[in-house]
Amino acid sequence: MEKQISQAVIARLPRYFRYLGDLKDKGVERISSQELSSLMKVTASQIRQDFNNFGGFGQQGYGYNVEYLYGEISKILGLTEKHHLIIIGAGNLGQAIANYMNFEKRGFIFKGIFDANPALHGKQIRDMVIQPMDNMESFIKENDIDIAVLTIPKTGAVEVANRLVKNNIKAIWNFAHVDLNVPKDIQVENVHLSESLMKLSYKLTKEQ
Amino acid sequence: MEKQISQAVIARLPRYFRYLGDLKDKGVERISSQELSSLMKVTASQIRQDFNNFGGFGQQGYGYNVEYLYGEISKILGLTEKHHLIIIGAGNLGQAIANYMNFEKRGFIFKGIFDANPALHGKQIRDMVIQPMDNMESFIKENDIDIAVLTIPKTGAVEVANRLVKNNIKAIWNFAHVDLNVPKDIQVENVHLSESLMKLSYKLTKEQ
Repeated sequence: MEKQISQAVIARLPRYFRYLGDLKDKGVERISSQELSSLMKVTASQIRQDFNNFGGFGQQGYGYNVEYLYGEISKILGLTEKHHLIIIGAGNLGQAIANYMNFEKRGFIFKGIFDANPALHGKQIRDMVIQPMDNMESFIKENDIDIAVLTIPKTGAVEVANRLVKNNIKAIWNFAHVDLNVPKDIQVENVHLSESLMKLSYKLTKEQ
Repeated sequence: MEKQISQAVIARLPRYFRYLGDLKDKGVERISSQELSSLMKVTASQIRQDFNNFGGFGQQGYGYNVEYLYGEISKILGLTEKHHLIIIGAGNLGQAIANYMNFEKRGFIFKGIFDANPALHGKQIRDMVIQPMDNMESFIKENDIDIAVLTIPKTGAVEVANRLVKNNIKAIWNFAHVDLNVPKDIQVENVHLSESLMKLSYKLTKEQ
């Protein structure tokens, strides 16, 4: 399991996980790579190649055991571990993420939410009080926070990211529309919504 | 310009656009591929290769003209055209997108917002009244809507997507955590937030 797995394979794992979760919920016990292929609209050979990166997950004649495969991918994705998460930025996007309960099912435990705007301090999102930014450092230490979600405008994002790094945060889920220059051992996953909309715009323009 | 441009190049265009916009705002007139390279942390040769897909955008000795390059990439991305957009789903995420004024600067004009929940009907987001889903079809026709943003749970998303397709929507920006099976001429761009969080989780797990 120590060989290097390509980014493309990793990017496909959550989609396998989603389909297997749906199959499991429907009570499906086994599925062949051909059936999974037609369901997911990728080739059966790609599925087998992807799974071979992790040892293959069982024999092809019988098909895959759905529950086992779901569990294995869950482990590979780190979803069997618990992560403590804070949200920086209590605007609509921060609230949307705070309210998305499904994350907790996957081991991402929402512990606190912070905002620079004094008008929001003391207000509640779910059962969580919005805290001032000054509380952030001590809160991270006391609550063993490993993931910070950045849902603030790009202007403040780099400074906040630096503060997070200094306080030993391990990962940043970054919605601010700016590249964070953090040390290599800090994991960053960017969600740049406007870049996604531009890609859609490009496709629309090409089709006309 | 009619040759096939790779998905990887297209995916990088919005980032070039963002950096060039920042440079333009700072009054920078020209930039070499080397300078852009160190700023964006990609190789100068990748920048030149990417730009060569579109004719190269001017000579290397002088560097690129920032304003011209920004304008050309803007045209390629279709950002000089106007698109009419509706949002389906007036929850936190739908509201976050409705309130993100920057999209309008890029030609994405927010025309209306819809929700299945009667408790929300008549409430306002920006200066827009939340409408019932029954109004959607006639609204699309009367307002020449070409993009729909789906910010609803996965259970209703496939059915709503089919209704959108029947009413000649051209593109769907899909935040629902499900694959939409729409005809090939309908452009879809997916933003699956939980898959993004799983990728972050994977990176965290690998680092431990």
